[in-house]
Amino acid sequence: MLKNKIKIGPYLYPMPVVLIGALIEERANFMPIAWTCIAEHKPPMILISASHTHLTNKGIKENQCFSVNFTSEDMVIETDYCGIKSGKDINKSTVFKVFYGDLKKAPMINESPINLECKVDKIIDNQRGHDIIIGEIVNAYAEDKYLTNGIPDIKKLNPLIFSMNDNNYWKLGEHIGRAWKIGHQYESK
Amino acid sequence: MLKNKIKIGPYLYPMPVVLIGALIEERANFMPIAWTCIAEHKPPMILISASHTHLTNKGIKENQCFSVNFTSEDMVIETDYCGIKSGKDINKSTVFKVFYGDLKKAPMINESPINLECKVDKIIDNQRGHDIIIGEIVNAYAEDKYLTNGIPDIKKLNPLIFSMNDNNYWKLGEHIGRAWKIGHQYESK
Repeated sequence: MLKNKIKIGPYLYPMPVVLIGALIEERANFMPIAWTCIAEHKPPMILISASHTHLTNKGIKENQCFSVNFTSEDMVIETDYCGIKSGKDINKSTVFKVFYGDLKKAPMINESPINLECKVDKIIDNQRGHDIIIGEIVNAYAEDKYLTNGIPDIKKLNPLIFSMNDNNYWKLGEHIGRAWKIGHQYESK
Repeated sequence: MLKNKIKIGPYLYPMPVVLIGALIEERANFMPIAWTCIAEHKPPMILISASHTHLTNKGIKENQCFSVNFTSEDMVIETDYCGIKSGKDINKSTVFKVFYGDLKKAPMINESPINLECKVDKIIDNQRGHDIIIGEIVNAYAEDKYLTNGIPDIKKLNPLIFSMNDNNYWKLGEHIGRAWKIGHQYESK
């Protein structure tokens, strides 16, 4: 075997990039995060792992809600800017057009192709510096142009794809195959 | 505003696809999963959200360890096959060449470009049907051809990218920009 032990690290490829929206002292704040995944489908839930040091964690705990705003290629500069700068130092409420939904305290980004409005279901301290924040998706918002058959279409979203450790953003590439279908070819291999 | 409320769902774009390895009654079993993200960087930890109904959860709980095996385009048929079939019905230990590391009970896939060997740190029942399983990455394995400067290189990995809800696999596309750098252009906009 030619495999070697390599330096351990937070490896996972690809990662998404979303902007987490929270109210901080009544002001909208947005933080890009790549440590996020779906936690449940019924009801739909999403989770993030976010450092205790972030203002966003404080805002989410206070208001018990947050938003997940999808990013696209044409938002790369603003998204990255929100990662470079902290809400402690600048006012990020003016970087995007902001709107609110039913929860009233989860600021959402108009420029994002899809917005998920979430209420906190559970917050778990991982005991190492990060909160695992699980939110129930109570509303999803989108313009029709990003949908196919009523659901988000990844090709229309043109999402930012992130590679951590080397810190690069990428586009989505070509189609490979259908899930829960292409695997049937294994039996005839 | 042209945004509408759309049907809520487990939306996140893109998702990775990894094969989770666990021993089930002394036999290696592999389950593809897209609900996974990094949970911590120091020490490196990764989490998955996996339905209670999976054999994999049982194996992970019994052995307190598991593996995360990255997938690439040339593994798409085998990966999808492992998702179509349950270890309850077929023996998946022969779909790939299997090896073991220091933990002895976390089966890993030789064909995967990168393998993460994980010991369970914490398992949280989300009370809706899924376990949030957090593992500390104790070893990472790779052939040199997948690395640049000693760390995994997403272009060399050629990872499977998954879109849930419409169920498709995609390739990585073109480079957009550097993270923590391109955002500085915002100030000169």
